Amino acid sequence: MNLKFILLTVAKIVCFEGVMMLPCAALGFIYGQNSSALTYLFAALALMLVGSLGFIKKTKNETVRAREGLVIAGLGWLAVSLFGALPLVFNGAAGFLDALFEIVSGFTTTGSTILTDIESLSRADLFWRSFTHWVGGMGVLVFVMMILSLGENQSMHIMRAEVPGPQTGKLVSKMKANSRILYMIYIALTAAETVMLMFGGLDFYEALVHAFGTAGTGGFSIYNDSIGHFQSPYVQYVITAFMLIFSVNFNLYYFILIGSFREAAKSEELKWFGGVVIASVAVVTVNVLQIYHNFADAFRYASFSVASVISTTGYSTVDFAAWPVLSQAVLVFLMFIGAMSGSTGGGIKISRFAILVKSAFSSLKKQISPRSVQQVKFEGKLAEKNANGVMGYMAVYVLIFWVSLLVISADGFSFTGSFTSVAACLNNVGPGLAEVGPVGNYSGFSAVSKIVLIFDMLAGRLELFPMLALFSPSAWKK
Amino acid sequence: MNLKFILLTVAKIVCFEGVMMLPCAALGFIYGQNSSALTYLFAALALMLVGSLGFIKKTKNETVRAREGLVIAGLGWLAVSLFGALPLVFNGAAGFLDALFEIVSGFTTTGSTILTDIESLSRADLFWRSFTHWVGGMGVLVFVMMILSLGENQSMHIMRAEVPGPQTGKLVSKMKANSRILYMIYIALTAAETVMLMFGGLDFYEALVHAFGTAGTGGFSIYNDSIGHFQSPYVQYVITAFMLIFSVNFNLYYFILIGSFREAAKSEELKWFGGVVIASVAVVTVNVLQIYHNFADAFRYASFSVASVISTTGYSTVDFAAWPVLSQAVLVFLMFIGAMSGSTGGGIKISRFAILVKSAFSSLKKQISPRSVQQVKFEGKLAEKNANGVMGYMAVYVLIFWVSLLVISADGFSFTGSFTSVAACLNNVGPGLAEVGPVGNYSGFSAVSKIVLIFDMLAGRLELFPMLALFSPSAWKK
Repeated sequence: MNLKFILLTVAKIVCFEGVMMLPCAALGFIYGQNSSALTYLFAALALMLVGSLGFIKKTKNETVRAREGLVIAGLGWLAVSLFGALPLVFNGAAGFLDALFEIVSGFTTTGSTILTDIESLSRADLFWRSFTHWVGGMGVLVFVMMILSLGENQSMHIMRAEVPGPQTGKLVSKMKANSRILYMIYIALTAAETVMLMFGGLDFYEALVHAFGTAGTGGFSIYNDSIGHFQSPYVQYVITAFMLIFSVNFNLYYFILIGSFREAAKSEELKWFGGVVIASVAVVTVNVLQIYHNFADAFRYASFSVASVISTTGYSTVDFAAWPVLSQAVLVFLMFIGAMSGSTGGGIKISRFAILVKSAFSSLKKQISPRSVQQVKFEGKLAEKNANGVMGYMAVYVLIFWVSLLVISADGFSFTGSFTSVAACLNNVGPGLAEVGPVGNYSGFSAVSKIVLIFDMLAGRLELFPMLALFSPSAWKK
Repeated sequence: MNLKFILLTVAKIVCFEGVMMLPCAALGFIYGQNSSALTYLFAALALMLVGSLGFIKKTKNETVRAREGLVIAGLGWLAVSLFGALPLVFNGAAGFLDALFEIVSGFTTTGSTILTDIESLSRADLFWRSFTHWVGGMGVLVFVMMILSLGENQSMHIMRAEVPGPQTGKLVSKMKANSRILYMIYIALTAAETVMLMFGGLDFYEALVHAFGTAGTGGFSIYNDSIGHFQSPYVQYVITAFMLIFSVNFNLYYFILIGSFREAAKSEELKWFGGVVIASVAVVTVNVLQIYHNFADAFRYASFSVASVISTTGYSTVDFAAWPVLSQAVLVFLMFIGAMSGSTGGGIKISRFAILVKSAFSSLKKQISPRSVQQVKFEGKLAEKNANGVMGYMAVYVLIFWVSLLVISADGFSFTGSFTSVAACLNNVGPGLAEVGPVGNYSGFSAVSKIVLIFDMLAGRLELFPMLALFSPSAWKK
C-alpha cells in the first residue's frame, strides 16, 4: 500500500475542490450576498492552501496498483465530501451531518435532499449544491487526472474505480485525450440545455443550475417543488429529453462526432435502454390516465417521471408517490435498472440488467439441455467473463442493500419508505416513495441512518468496491 | 421430447392422488359429514380410474432426459393441483380459481390462504388441505418414483427437478433405498410432533393436521387465528422447535441415524442456518420488547415468528405485520433466505445465500488484488461451478419476482402488500405484510393476479425451472 502517494493525490484533489468554490464566491458577490460569498472565498483559499501540499511534497514511489486506485477513489470522494460540506455549515444552512448528507447527495448525483426549505438558502449555497452534481457526474477524479500529469497506467487504476459501468471500453483506455473529448461533449450538451431552457423563459441562473442537475443526472432543484415550479410543457419536455440524453453512454456521442453513426447504432445497450423506456412510458401513461383524464398530461408526466427515474436524476413535476401502485412499481423497477454504462447516470446499469436477463435464459436452456454449450453474448462479445463480474457485483449489491435496509428500518419509517430510501440512495436516484417521495425528504432519519445512506450514495456512485476497500484490511496491507 | 412417456407418468401421478384422497373420505365418514366424505370418495375413484390408464398403456420408448424430467415435474404438479382443487369446488368451499389457489398453496407448502373463514369448512376439506402440505413437503414425485419401478437414470432426472436445493447430494443419487429412508425419518418426526402436541392438550385430529402443516413447512391451520388459537406456551414452543427441525437438511438426520455425528456436525450450511436464526431471534426479541414489556413473551413470539418465516412455514401466533418495521424487515429478509437445501422448506436456501455472501467477499478481494486467485468454497468443496448455477438461478429468480410484482401491483394493493405477496408466494412462506399479513388473506386479488401467484408458488416449490420449461419451445422440440 503506497500510502504517501495516496495522501498526496487526495491533497491535490482537495486543492482542486478549492478552485471549484471560486465561482460560487463570485456568484455570491454578483448577487450582493456578501457574507455567504465570503464563506466560499475563505473556504476556497483554505482548501487550495492545504491541498497545495500535494504539489509541493514529492514521493519517489509512484506505483499505483488496483488497491491504490480503489483507496484513492474512496478517500478522495470522502475528503471532497467532508470539506465540501463546510460552507453550508458556516452559512447556517444545516448542521454538519445534514450538510454532509446534502453534499454527498450532490457529488454522487443522487439528489436526495435533507433540507426542508431549500428556497431559504443563499444563491451561493444553491449554486454550490448544483455545481457538485455537474462535477460529480463526469467524475471528480477523471477531471483531476485530466489536469495532472500521471502515467497512463496510474490514471488507469484510479479512473477504473470511478467510471460507471461494468466495462471500461476501448475508448477510456486512451485516457487523457479521450477524457478531454468526453468533457467537451459534456460541456457542449450542458450549454445546449441551458440555452434551450432560457428559450422557455428561465433566467440564466435558473437555466444553468437546472442544466447542472440534468447533466450530472443529479436532481437538485432550487425550488421546493422541483421542476413542478415550471408549468411550461416546453420546459418539462426539454428536461425530459436531456435526462434521457445524459443517460446514454458518452462513447456513442464520440462515435457520432467522428461520423461513424453505424458504430453508434450498433449499440446493443442502446436498444435495451430504448425498449425499457418506451415500454415503461406506455404502461405508466395508461395507468395514470385515471388521474389526469387527458392523454397529453398523462404522457407528459409519465415520460418525465420515467426519464427522471431511469436516468437516476430524480427531478419531479408531480408527486409520483401518490400514483397508482402499478406505476410506483414500474418506477421502483427503473430505479434499480438505472442508466447506460459510461453515462453520468447511476443504478445497476442497463448493460448489467441485459446480461442478467440473458443469463437467465441461458440457465433455462442449460437446464433443458444440460450438455448444450450456452454462451451469453453482449455487444457481440462473449460475456462469460463479464457475467461473472456482473454476478459478483450483484452479490455485493444485494448484501449492502439488505444490511442498509435492516439498519435504517430501526427508525420506524414505513416498509415502503425504508425500502425505497435505500434503493434511491444506493442507485443515486434521489426521491423514493412514501416518507421520502417527491414531496418528502430525508430529514426524519436518525444520525445512524443518515451515515448509512451517505455510505450507500458513495458506494452506489463508485460502483461499490472503493468504499468497501476502505474497510478491508487486505487493501491496507503493506 | 418423449411425450407419450410423459403423459403416462402424469397419469400414474394422478392415480396416486386418488389414493391420497381415500383417508379424507374415511375421516369424513368417521365424523359423520357424509356428503363431503362422498365427494372425496367419488373423486378418489374417478382419479384412480383415469390414472390407471398410465399403468395399462405401455410405451417402448422410456428415454428420460433432463427435458422430460422438467416437463414431468411441471405437468405432474399442475395436474395434481387442478384435480386436487375439485373436491373443494364440489363441496362449495370455494370457486374453481380460489380452490386451485388454495390447493397449490397446499401442495407447494406455501400456506397462503384465500379463504376468509376456514373454520366453516368440513373436516374432510380441512384434512385434505393439510394433507397436501405433508405430501408436497417431501415431494409428490419422489413418493411416486419410490413406488414405481423406474430405472435409476429415469428417476434421477425427474427427481432432480423436484428436490429442493442447489446440490443433489451423494445421498440422493442412490435413489430408491434412500428416499425410503428419508420418508421413514419424515414419518417418524411427524409422529413425534403429533404425540408431543397431544401432550399439550390437542386432540388427535388437531395435533395431526398441525403436525402435517409443520412437517411440510406449509402453514395451513384449521383455525382462523392459526397457532394463536393455542395459548399454551408449551404448544407454541413445540411447534417452534419442529419448524426448525424440518428446516434442516434431511441428509443430516440420516448421518445421525447411522451414527456418524461428526459428519452431521461438519455441515457448513447448518452453521450458517444456526447463525442466522440466533441473530434474528435476538434482534426481533429486543425490538418487540417495546410491545410486550416482558422478556418471556417477547422471546416466545420472536422465536416462533423467526422459525415460522425462515422455515417458510407461515404459522403465526401474533400479527407480526403490526410489529415495528425493523422486525418486519428482518422477517422479509428471512422470507427470501429460506431453509436449508434438502429440507422441506422453501426460499432461496441457506446454501445459496452462503455462496452469495462468499462470492461477494471474493469479488471484493479480486478487485483489490486483480491477479490473485479467488476460490469460493462451500462445504469444503470448490463452489465455482456451483456458484455459476447459483447466479443463473438468482437471475431467473429476480426476473420472475419483478414481472410478478409488476402484474399484481395493477390491483392497487399497497407497495408493501404487493411486494410481500410475491415474496411470500415465490418463497412458499404463506403470509406477507400489510394486506396479506397474518390476519389478512389473498382473497382481494384479481383473477390475473391469482394466476400469477399460483405460478409463483409452483415455480418456487420446483426451484423455478420446471414451470418455465413448460413455456419454453425448446423443451417441447421433437
